[in-house]
Amino acid sequence: MKKYLITGIGGFVGRYFWEYLLIHEPDVQVLGLDMMQKSPWNHPALQYEALNLMDASAIGKVVESFRPDCIIHLASMSSVGQSWKAPAECFNNNTGIFLNLIEAVRCFCPTARVLSIGSSEEYGDYPSEAMPLNENYELHPGNPYAVARVAQEMLSKLYARSYDLDIMMTRSFNHIGPGQREVFVISSFIKQLVSIKKHGVHGKLHVGNINITRDFLDVRDVVDAYWKIINHGKKGEIYNVCSGNGVTLKNIIDKLCNILELHIDIVIDESLIRPTDNLHVIGDNYKLCHNLGWNRKYSMNDTLKDMIDYWRNV
Amino acid sequence: MKKYLITGIGGFVGRYFWEYLLIHEPDVQVLGLDMMQKSPWNHPALQYEALNLMDASAIGKVVESFRPDCIIHLASMSSVGQSWKAPAECFNNNTGIFLNLIEAVRCFCPTARVLSIGSSEEYGDYPSEAMPLNENYELHPGNPYAVARVAQEMLSKLYARSYDLDIMMTRSFNHIGPGQREVFVISSFIKQLVSIKKHGVHGKLHVGNINITRDFLDVRDVVDAYWKIINHGKKGEIYNVCSGNGVTLKNIIDKLCNILELHIDIVIDESLIRPTDNLHVIGDNYKLCHNLGWNRKYSMNDTLKDMIDYWRNV
Repeated sequence: MKKYLITGIGGFVGRYFWEYLLIHEPDVQVLGLDMMQKSPWNHPALQYEALNLMDASAIGKVVESFRPDCIIHLASMSSVGQSWKAPAECFNNNTGIFLNLIEAVRCFCPTARVLSIGSSEEYGDYPSEAMPLNENYELHPGNPYAVARVAQEMLSKLYARSYDLDIMMTRSFNHIGPGQREVFVISSFIKQLVSIKKHGVHGKLHVGNINITRDFLDVRDVVDAYWKIINHGKKGEIYNVCSGNGVTLKNIIDKLCNILELHIDIVIDESLIRPTDNLHVIGDNYKLCHNLGWNRKYSMNDTLKDMIDYWRNV
Repeated sequence: MKKYLITGIGGFVGRYFWEYLLIHEPDVQVLGLDMMQKSPWNHPALQYEALNLMDASAIGKVVESFRPDCIIHLASMSSVGQSWKAPAECFNNNTGIFLNLIEAVRCFCPTARVLSIGSSEEYGDYPSEAMPLNENYELHPGNPYAVARVAQEMLSKLYARSYDLDIMMTRSFNHIGPGQREVFVISSFIKQLVSIKKHGVHGKLHVGNINITRDFLDVRDVVDAYWKIINHGKKGEIYNVCSGNGVTLKNIIDKLCNILELHIDIVIDESLIRPTDNLHVIGDNYKLCHNLGWNRKYSMNDTLKDMIDYWRNV
């Protein structure tokens, strides 16, 4: 019976990872950590603790008593916009909490496998002809969140090499899926479009820059990748987690209107345009596919349909 | 009348930078910050405040009221050994305090010139044939302190580019000079040798690995470089601060014994050997010399003689 520690279990990815485990490892025992007081689920396999990972001594006690075999470290303050507003807080809640966790691992369960989540933001701005971004590219982080993730990755490598800890790292690209909050762009589109559809077949969609290209992956494919990495990944290695396909936001809007049979006017809202957004972000998932046998299971259309269903029912 | 803010003014480099300013800019007005309660000097040009840079609001108030033209940010927890023992603390006292300072600059004096100090540790381990290390080399930080410095440098570049702040960066190699504490290797050698000399001409010197090659620069040449960078450096640029010459610790011991006319037995103390020390660290100072007209003024022999005088008189 394997023991998983999941930080940030109440978040978008955390919830899906927990559901994935229940299906793929029915004998699993999970300790979930998050900030909210109440456990997100009542289930005999789940132990939950409300805990702020900034508290090094608390995380030390938890790791010492639970002694996990696998640690999925999902907790993070991952908003780029927020990292410009409060960069020190962003560092504390990415690099700082990672250090608290990894020191606890070093002291109390040095043989545990650890998955440290990073971000495609670490790559920074590359021209379209440099796509897809692979794991050997130089990193040019373009915002404080990205710098904090690069620091976390450098520390992960250091702890793997210096203390022989069993750490794997990801650079995760954009996630989408049912249940994602509307502060994220695709959810925001779908929520608006579902509401337009309810009131007719014509309306206005408020958007930022829809000419940017992104690499979106269904959250259910993301957790499948994370499970494969934590179980079969190689110590000290970094894996892109991405679809390998680039799509413009404009193209996604067209797909959505097609599924919903809608005609809309697109209204550019200047306040939604980020001045420093990269134009093209597409990842190379060869390493993940080739070395770990991962393949995406959800097409973009599947995902969009499921997200539409979600927003129709909330 | 130019106004300098110097953080860590009570440290080894801070004290020399202050003395340098008094000679080269007699009209200067300085606000010195450090942790000790009392000002290190009474001088009409110096205003002193005891302040912990972890206190973002305190540093904000200081920057807002003083509005410096130039900021030399020397404060740091710069021990590699300590960074392994307390990595989170090391991050707070390098990356964290830098963020507090640079956010204060962005809010209250965005036109100030800022010198962000980095370290040769950022380069990490390179083979001897890769020497000298120049500013374009990839960074492979090999300890938590080095990662914190890389993060500080990435943030410096980001603030220079995104907010147009006038930040220059260094990668500073080993400093030596009179007044350096004996926890540093050359001071430790000299203190021991001066004591041996006092009691005769033969004795035992306790050392760690003396076959490592380092690039040592006199602290008085270091502050001259810092002054030239803050006054004539280019925004967003990184400068190695180093002698350009590599010397083994063994070679320095020979020079010292020569100056002191001593014969000694070298005793290897295993507890002083660091398992992960890089064998060769030599910097390339072409950019500093060529672009800013800097040249070292103190030869290794001058520096060693002055350090011997210092340890004879303490």
